Amino acid sequence: MASLSSYLSPLTTEVDTICAPATAVGGALAIIRVSGPQAFSIVSTLCSLYCSGAAANTVHYTRLIAPVPAGSPAGQEVIDEALVTIFRAPHSYTGEDSVEISCHGSSYIINKVLELLIQNGCRMANPGEFTQRAYLNGKLDLSQAEAVADLIASTNRATHQLAMSQLRGGISSELSALRDQLLKLTSLLELELDFSDHEDLEFADRTELLALAKKIDTHITRLAKSFETGQALKSGIPVAIVGKTNVGKSTLLNALLKDNRAIVSDVHGTTRDTIEETMDINGIQFRFIDTAGLRKTDDEVEQIGIERTIQKIKQASIVIWLLDQRPTWSEIDEMHELSKGKKCIYVHNKADLIDIHKFNPYILPLSMISAKTGKGISNLRKRIFEEAERAGLTLNANEIIVTNARHYDALTRAHSHLQRVLDGLHNNLSGDLLSEDLRLTLDTLAEITGGQITPNDVLENIFKHFCVGK
Amino acid sequence: MASLSSYLSPLTTEVDTICAPATAVGGALAIIRVSGPQAFSIVSTLCSLYCSGAAANTVHYTRLIAPVPAGSPAGQEVIDEALVTIFRAPHSYTGEDSVEISCHGSSYIINKVLELLIQNGCRMANPGEFTQRAYLNGKLDLSQAEAVADLIASTNRATHQLAMSQLRGGISSELSALRDQLLKLTSLLELELDFSDHEDLEFADRTELLALAKKIDTHITRLAKSFETGQALKSGIPVAIVGKTNVGKSTLLNALLKDNRAIVSDVHGTTRDTIEETMDINGIQFRFIDTAGLRKTDDEVEQIGIERTIQKIKQASIVIWLLDQRPTWSEIDEMHELSKGKKCIYVHNKADLIDIHKFNPYILPLSMISAKTGKGISNLRKRIFEEAERAGLTLNANEIIVTNARHYDALTRAHSHLQRVLDGLHNNLSGDLLSEDLRLTLDTLAEITGGQITPNDVLENIFKHFCVGK
Repeated sequence: MASLSSYLSPLTTEVDTICAPATAVGGALAIIRVSGPQAFSIVSTLCSLYCSGAAANTVHYTRLIAPVPAGSPAGQEVIDEALVTIFRAPHSYTGEDSVEISCHGSSYIINKVLELLIQNGCRMANPGEFTQRAYLNGKLDLSQAEAVADLIASTNRATHQLAMSQLRGGISSELSALRDQLLKLTSLLELELDFSDHEDLEFADRTELLALAKKIDTHITRLAKSFETGQALKSGIPVAIVGKTNVGKSTLLNALLKDNRAIVSDVHGTTRDTIEETMDINGIQFRFIDTAGLRKTDDEVEQIGIERTIQKIKQASIVIWLLDQRPTWSEIDEMHELSKGKKCIYVHNKADLIDIHKFNPYILPLSMISAKTGKGISNLRKRIFEEAERAGLTLNANEIIVTNARHYDALTRAHSHLQRVLDGLHNNLSGDLLSEDLRLTLDTLAEITGGQITPNDVLENIFKHFCVGK
Repeated sequence: MASLSSYLSPLTTEVDTICAPATAVGGALAIIRVSGPQAFSIVSTLCSLYCSGAAANTVHYTRLIAPVPAGSPAGQEVIDEALVTIFRAPHSYTGEDSVEISCHGSSYIINKVLELLIQNGCRMANPGEFTQRAYLNGKLDLSQAEAVADLIASTNRATHQLAMSQLRGGISSELSALRDQLLKLTSLLELELDFSDHEDLEFADRTELLALAKKIDTHITRLAKSFETGQALKSGIPVAIVGKTNVGKSTLLNALLKDNRAIVSDVHGTTRDTIEETMDINGIQFRFIDTAGLRKTDDEVEQIGIERTIQKIKQASIVIWLLDQRPTWSEIDEMHELSKGKKCIYVHNKADLIDIHKFNPYILPLSMISAKTGKGISNLRKRIFEEAERAGLTLNANEIIVTNARHYDALTRAHSHLQRVLDGLHNNLSGDLLSEDLRLTLDTLAEITGGQITPNDVLENIFKHFCVGK
């Protein structure tokens, strides 16, 4: 992809040198990134290394030193013993001359190094500004840049795979294929226009055009529809646990969550502040929605709680009905009614307390579990995953899934532009009327990868959600 | 300093290769450290780089790849696009072959990389194990190793300077000077013993010996005494704000704390879980202790609160007496009595409400402030710092201060061994009786830098307080 630096405001001939910590505070080590035309000279002012003379992709052990005000009794202040890594344009993440300072993770040291960098001419980077520069220098397209933020935020196999596929150009190549087909459609229309000037076969055989347009539209529609799956994978596939009061919903939730730990746990504040519990099954995140106990009541307050449970069932993709006795026919009807269109799992709890032979599954395929003893829980996990697979909510290799709301919005608009092309073809509108909508379809799809000139406010909006230092 | 690897249990001929994340979770980037004889071959299994063939101190861009189980429809799973840095023994932090993997800061990626490293032969490092290896390989002595943990934890100029001075060998060289003097004392005693065999001048002129022993003891005592300052600097110099109910103590505290922010704030969980507020003045940390309002009362419960305030005054190094009207003579006596031996600052609040001329400081040197408007606050900050200086609690350049309880303990024991030497010299004990205590003094001081064989449980105890990955 060609460099987009030329799209920068022509007044910005001077590019700032930016700096930011790229690691979270609280670790043994920290990385401070510096990127821009002055990166080498600025870093050289605070260490004993002459960066401009150092070879690309080499690491150097050095002391970081703060100058001490004249007249101070002490000598120079040694800030840290650190490693400095040299990257030379264009072979760096940003495409610019860059330095990574790896120092100890003390908040004093990090602040002091940033302070010195800024005193010597750096500017503190905005969130995502390193990646924004990578985009402007043609190292990544816009959808790949967005994937970087998703990759950093990924906490399970599914979200990681989605982000990695997007980073490695999954969506970009899909869009490039669409673009080729749209250009083919455009040239066919132009061919038709050329012929129409000379002969009388105007609007003659549009079968091929229509077939091609329909094929493109199917493709766009599939991508747009995948957003729902993308959202479920990103925020966790919603699973509601529903049942009467005291049937053991919380005990079941705890049993399901048990033994679900990682070597490194998430940092506080990055996990959502919600009562909902999430859990990984086979690398897919599920989001468990606790509900109030369901029971017939005339109590008005309790009725509100039940209404809320019904709402939560509607939000869920999978509903676990938890029972502790044989349901009546009317109860079965009610369950079917409430969870229409959802994947349902009927579970009989307290299996440790009952005689299993009395509970032959006569109408519902019941899973027997004991939330208390853990019996049947691993089978239930397997069932939950299978139901998600059946609902098409798990990940197929090589399938491109849209996870970004901006992409979804562009695909939806591209779809409606193409719809007008399709209508026009059906109604035998002239080619020059259609070509405008075709152009809009192309431009709208191009917004996703940012191949077109991307307005500054759009860029700002994209990168402000990044972490600082990336 | 000679390599101490030989002190490792002789059965441990095979050294493990260890790995750990060295950065906190939650940032854009993460560093995973690998160190040990298999570092290159293990890292090579998960990336496209042949690490053993790479030059020392070079950085390489590579994909991290997880093998996919046979029969899986998907190909290899790309975990991340990462940078890999090669360090060759002995020129690495640990002194061993080492690799640093700089990947994206996603918890999934970090876990996956660690998982793959462990599957391929690494072991998860214990806290501080990288630094422990640096010590065992003679890269650092024990007091320097301990300084690494303090350096990482440092949040202000004072704690940083203390740790940096220790890391750069401040205490080590002080102890080395003491050791030289103790060895001189030993050889003088031996000389005396040699002469005593031949002549009658046994226990003759011990003036020189006594002077030297006293000089050494003064030195040890000064170092041990500096621990109090070290503690105050590490945990913040305690400042109690005391005054009657409603005099504006909380408003003053808030006014003092205002405008005290850093570019990077501390991570949750590393700051102490306490109601006490800390604040930096000129790079020194002060710890403000809130107290209940003081007033004469017969109420028993309230009396308990007042007792507690009196306790807090006792813990403080500096007491700020906050007044909002002219104190009576008996009140002045009471304040003097309560804060005997403390540095006191008498402050008149609500300066905005009163006519300053009515409040000529007649007996107490009153500072006039308005906690509400902020008037006088920056002067008060300056006063607080000056009182700390007067109490000898601030940092002098080049002065060695002991901050480590283990060092303090060793110094105290060395002092008591040397005390017996001094007593013996006074009582004209024979040289061979003294030399045993002299040897104990030397050995005890050597514990600090770990020049002696350090028992495993001592090492374990030192390094278990480190963060993982350092």
